Amino acid sequence: MRPEQRRIAEGILFTDQYQLSMAQLYFRHGLHEQTAQFDHFFRRNPDYGMHAAGYCVTAGLEWLLDWMEMVRFTDDDVAQLRMQRDRAGGQLFGDDFLAYLRATDGFAGLSLRAIPEGRVVHPNAPLTTVRGPLAYAQILETALLNQLNYQTLIATKAARIRDVSHAAPVLEFGLRRGQDRGANAGTRAALIGGADFTSNVGLSSTLGLAPKGTHAHALVQVFLALGYSELDAFKAYAEVYPDDCLLLVDTVDTLGSGLPNAIKVFEQLRAKGHRPVGIRLDSGDLAYLAIHAAMMLDQAGFPDTTIVLSSDLDELVIWQIQTQIGAEAAHAGADADAILKRLVYGVGTRLVTSHGEGSLGGVYKLVAMHERDEWRPAIKLADTAAKLTNPGLKQAWRIYDGRGRATADLVALEHERPDEQEQLCLRHPSDAGLQRQLTRSRLARIEPLLVDVWREGQRVGPRPTLEQMRERRRNDVEALDSGVRRLVNPHIYHVSLTQPLWELKQELLGRLRGGR
Amino acid sequence: MRPEQRRIAEGILFTDQYQLSMAQLYFRHGLHEQTAQFDHFFRRNPDYGMHAAGYCVTAGLEWLLDWMEMVRFTDDDVAQLRMQRDRAGGQLFGDDFLAYLRATDGFAGLSLRAIPEGRVVHPNAPLTTVRGPLAYAQILETALLNQLNYQTLIATKAARIRDVSHAAPVLEFGLRRGQDRGANAGTRAALIGGADFTSNVGLSSTLGLAPKGTHAHALVQVFLALGYSELDAFKAYAEVYPDDCLLLVDTVDTLGSGLPNAIKVFEQLRAKGHRPVGIRLDSGDLAYLAIHAAMMLDQAGFPDTTIVLSSDLDELVIWQIQTQIGAEAAHAGADADAILKRLVYGVGTRLVTSHGEGSLGGVYKLVAMHERDEWRPAIKLADTAAKLTNPGLKQAWRIYDGRGRATADLVALEHERPDEQEQLCLRHPSDAGLQRQLTRSRLARIEPLLVDVWREGQRVGPRPTLEQMRERRRNDVEALDSGVRRLVNPHIYHVSLTQPLWELKQELLGRLRGGR
Repeated sequence: MRPEQRRIAEGILFTDQYQLSMAQLYFRHGLHEQTAQFDHFFRRNPDYGMHAAGYCVTAGLEWLLDWMEMVRFTDDDVAQLRMQRDRAGGQLFGDDFLAYLRATDGFAGLSLRAIPEGRVVHPNAPLTTVRGPLAYAQILETALLNQLNYQTLIATKAARIRDVSHAAPVLEFGLRRGQDRGANAGTRAALIGGADFTSNVGLSSTLGLAPKGTHAHALVQVFLALGYSELDAFKAYAEVYPDDCLLLVDTVDTLGSGLPNAIKVFEQLRAKGHRPVGIRLDSGDLAYLAIHAAMMLDQAGFPDTTIVLSSDLDELVIWQIQTQIGAEAAHAGADADAILKRLVYGVGTRLVTSHGEGSLGGVYKLVAMHERDEWRPAIKLADTAAKLTNPGLKQAWRIYDGRGRATADLVALEHERPDEQEQLCLRHPSDAGLQRQLTRSRLARIEPLLVDVWREGQRVGPRPTLEQMRERRRNDVEALDSGVRRLVNPHIYHVSLTQPLWELKQELLGRLRGGR
Repeated sequence: MRPEQRRIAEGILFTDQYQLSMAQLYFRHGLHEQTAQFDHFFRRNPDYGMHAAGYCVTAGLEWLLDWMEMVRFTDDDVAQLRMQRDRAGGQLFGDDFLAYLRATDGFAGLSLRAIPEGRVVHPNAPLTTVRGPLAYAQILETALLNQLNYQTLIATKAARIRDVSHAAPVLEFGLRRGQDRGANAGTRAALIGGADFTSNVGLSSTLGLAPKGTHAHALVQVFLALGYSELDAFKAYAEVYPDDCLLLVDTVDTLGSGLPNAIKVFEQLRAKGHRPVGIRLDSGDLAYLAIHAAMMLDQAGFPDTTIVLSSDLDELVIWQIQTQIGAEAAHAGADADAILKRLVYGVGTRLVTSHGEGSLGGVYKLVAMHERDEWRPAIKLADTAAKLTNPGLKQAWRIYDGRGRATADLVALEHERPDEQEQLCLRHPSDAGLQRQLTRSRLARIEPLLVDVWREGQRVGPRPTLEQMRERRRNDVEALDSGVRRLVNPHIYHVSLTQPLWELKQELLGRLRGGR
C-alpha cells in the first residue's frame, strides 16, 4: 500500500461501513450526541480443539488508545465519504453530516474504562466500557474489537505457553506468519502474555528489549554452496560472535554432523576464553534429539550450554516434549531434569496465529442510553440464554477466597459496592436456580477491575511499561486455581451477577419479550 | 504504538534478528555483496481439517514492493542497532557494518521475479525468486514471507468461498477479527481472491470500491432502549436510506418480528416509489430462516429483494446451507433455486483468519550462489524427501492440455525452454520411479509463470489493478480441473521437474550426503 493510501486505510476510516451508516442515521434523528454506553466482552475462552483455555489475558488497549489519540476525520477522509453514492445515484452521506464529522475532534468526547492490559479476564464480564456520544461510540467499535480481540487472543496463548514452560525462556518467532504489519501486535501481545524475548527487531527496539536470534539454515547453505563445510560456517559464526555463539545444528544431519561440528567450535571458543551459548534444533524428533544433544554436549564438557527448540511448537507440543524427555532420558542414561532446565522454547506460527482457535469472539454491545437525566438500560435478545447481554452500567469485581485465590468475578451495577457488603449473593448469569452465598469476612479481598483509561480525548494515567503488564499477568495467573490453569479440560471459572443486576436483566427480558 | 515507534517497527527493522546477525557475518567474511538467489515457495496447500485446498491463489506482492520502495536503513534504525550488546557487553553490530547498511540504498540492489498476484499457484514451484547481494537478499526474507504468506492464504480461502458461492455476491466483513492494521491486508487479499466487496471503509476507498454495510443490532437496541420499537428503528433507517434499505431482522425475533416489520417498511417504501433492497440474517438456522424469509417476502410481493447471510460463514458452511435449502425448500413449498439466487454471503472471521488453517508455510531458501562468473547451486537437505529444496536458477511453467485445462506445473532450470521441445519429460520431484511423457503438439499451451517485477530498486511494469488481478484468478481457476477445485478431498495437481533439474538435484544430493 502506498503511503497516501495508508493514511486513509489506517486512519479513522479503519472501520466498517455500517458504523458510518448508523452514525448518519443517528445524526438525522438527532441522536448522535446522545450519551450511550457500550460494553466490550467475549463470550467464551479459546477452544483449541484438543485443548482449551480456562482464562484469557487482556491486551491491546494501549495501542487502541494511541490510535484514538491520533485519528480524526480529515479532509481526505471526508472527501472519500463524499464520493460514496446511494443506489439512486445521490450522495450517500450528506454534507451536513460530513461537516459534523469534520468539525468534531475524533474520539475526544468518549470516556473509556477498561481492565488493564496483562490482567487475567473471563467471559461475559466487561473488559472495556465506552461512554459518550452515540455516533462516535458506534464508530469506535471496529477498531476497538480489532485491537483487543487479536492481542487478547495472543496474550492468552502466550500465557499458556509460559505456564507449561515453567522457568524456561520462551522466544517469539512469528513475524513471518502474521498479517502484514499487524504481526507487530502479535509480538507485543506475546511479550505481555509470557514470551521473554522476540526475534522481531523493530518491535523489540520500540520496547527497549534485546531482539533474539542467531542464524538460519541459509548460513550453512551459503558455505556449502561455495564449497566450504558446515564446520566452516560454524567457525565463521564463532569468529564474528565469540560470546554469543548459538549454532543451528540440523542443516545437514543433527547428531551425525551438526553436533560434532558445534562441539569442535565450542572447544576452540573455550580455548580462547569464551563461553559458548548453545545449539538450536529446528526439525526432527525434538525430544529425542534434545536428549542426545544434551548428552553429547555434557560429554564434551559443555553442560551449561542451552538447547533452543523450535519448529511448530505450542503449549501442547512443549508439554509432549517434556513428557517424552521425562520418560526417555533415563533409558538413554541422561538426567531428564537437567535437560529440561537447559531448554529454551522458540515459538512462532502457532503463537502468532493462535493455532487451533484463530480468533477471539469479542463483541461490543449497547448496554444503556442516557435520556432526560436518566440511564435507560439496553439488552440484546438472543436465541440462547448464554448469549443474552447483561444490561446497564456495570463494574466487574474479582473475589479472592481466604487463601488469596481468585474464586469468581462478580458483575455488578455501577453504583453497587460488593466490597462493603457482609453477605454476597452470586447469581448464575442465566440459570435462575444457581446461586452461591459468600461471607465477606471469609474472603481475602474484593477488587474492582475496570479503571478509567480515557477521558476527554486523553489517556488517564501513565502508559504502563511492559514489565508492569507482565507483573499483572504473573500475579493474576498465580492467583488462579491450578484447575483453571490446566491446559486440557480446565475448570470453569465462575463469572456471576449480583442480585440487582440479575433482577434488572429479568425485568428487561420480561418487558421485551412481552412487548414485542 | 506511537508514530515514532511505528517508523522503527514498520521500516526495514521489520525483520528477524538472525537476518541481521547473518548479514554482519557475511559482511565480515566479504560475502555480503556476493550475488545469491533465493526461492520463495510453499510446500503444501492449506488443509482446513474437514476440507482442504487443491490450489492456492498468490497475493501480497504489490504491497511487498511498496514496502521495498519505501524502506532503507535510516539514522534511527542504525542507532537502534548500535545499542544492541553482545554477552560480553560490547557492541553487537560493528560501526563498519552499520555504516555499510546506512550507505546502501535498501533493496535497490535486488532483482525479483514472481508469479503475478491473483494467479493460481501450487506447492513446490517458486512463487518468487530473489537475486542480488547476499546481505540484502537475506534481510528481505522476513518481510517477503510476512506479506506473501498471509495474503496468499486469504486469497486462497476467498477463491474457495467464491467458487462455492457461484454467482452470488460475497462480502468481506473481517476487519474486527484481523491483526491490527494487518487486517487491511486480509481485506485486500479477499478482494483479489473472490470477495466482491468489503465492509472495510478505508481499504475500499483506496481501491475505489464502494464499501458495503447497512446497520447492526445496535441500531435496533438504541431505539428499544429509548422506548421505541424495532419497527420504529426500521422506519428510521428507511427514511434516511430509502433507496438502500437493507434491514437486519434478527435482533428481536427473526420470523415473528423482524420479517413482518421489514415488510411493513418495504411496503411504505414501495408506496413512495422506492425499491427495497432486502434483509440480513445474522443468527439461527440460516437455511431454514432463508427459506421462510424468502416465502414471506414473496408473499408480500418482494421477490426481488436479496437475503444477506452472515454469522461464521466459510466455504463449508455455505455449501451446507445451499444443500439444506435444496433439500428443504420444496417441503416448505418454496423454489430452492430462486432462493439460492437471491442470497448474498457475508464472510468475516473465518475468511480473515483462514479458519481451520491459520497460516501458509511459505519458505525462502537459498538455491544458488554466484562465484567467479559461475552459479553454484545450493540445496537444503531434509529428513523427508518431500522437504528437499529444488536447487539452482529456475523458471516455473504451466502446461495446458488439449482441452486448454492446466494439467501440470513444470519446474525447469532457467535456461531450459520446455515450450520449444516436442517431447516433455515430467519427473516426480522426489520419487525416481514416477515420470510422465507429454507430446508438445498435443498440448494447447506452455506458459512461463515467473515474470520480472523488481529491478534496480524499482518495480517493473505498471501496478496491476484489482480488476486485472481478479481476472487472472478467474481465468486460472476456470482452467483447473474440477477435481482440483473440489472443496473436500481435492485431486492433487502435479508439480513436476524437468529431467535436467532432476539430475542436478540428484547430483547435489549425492555430493552432500557423500561429503558430509
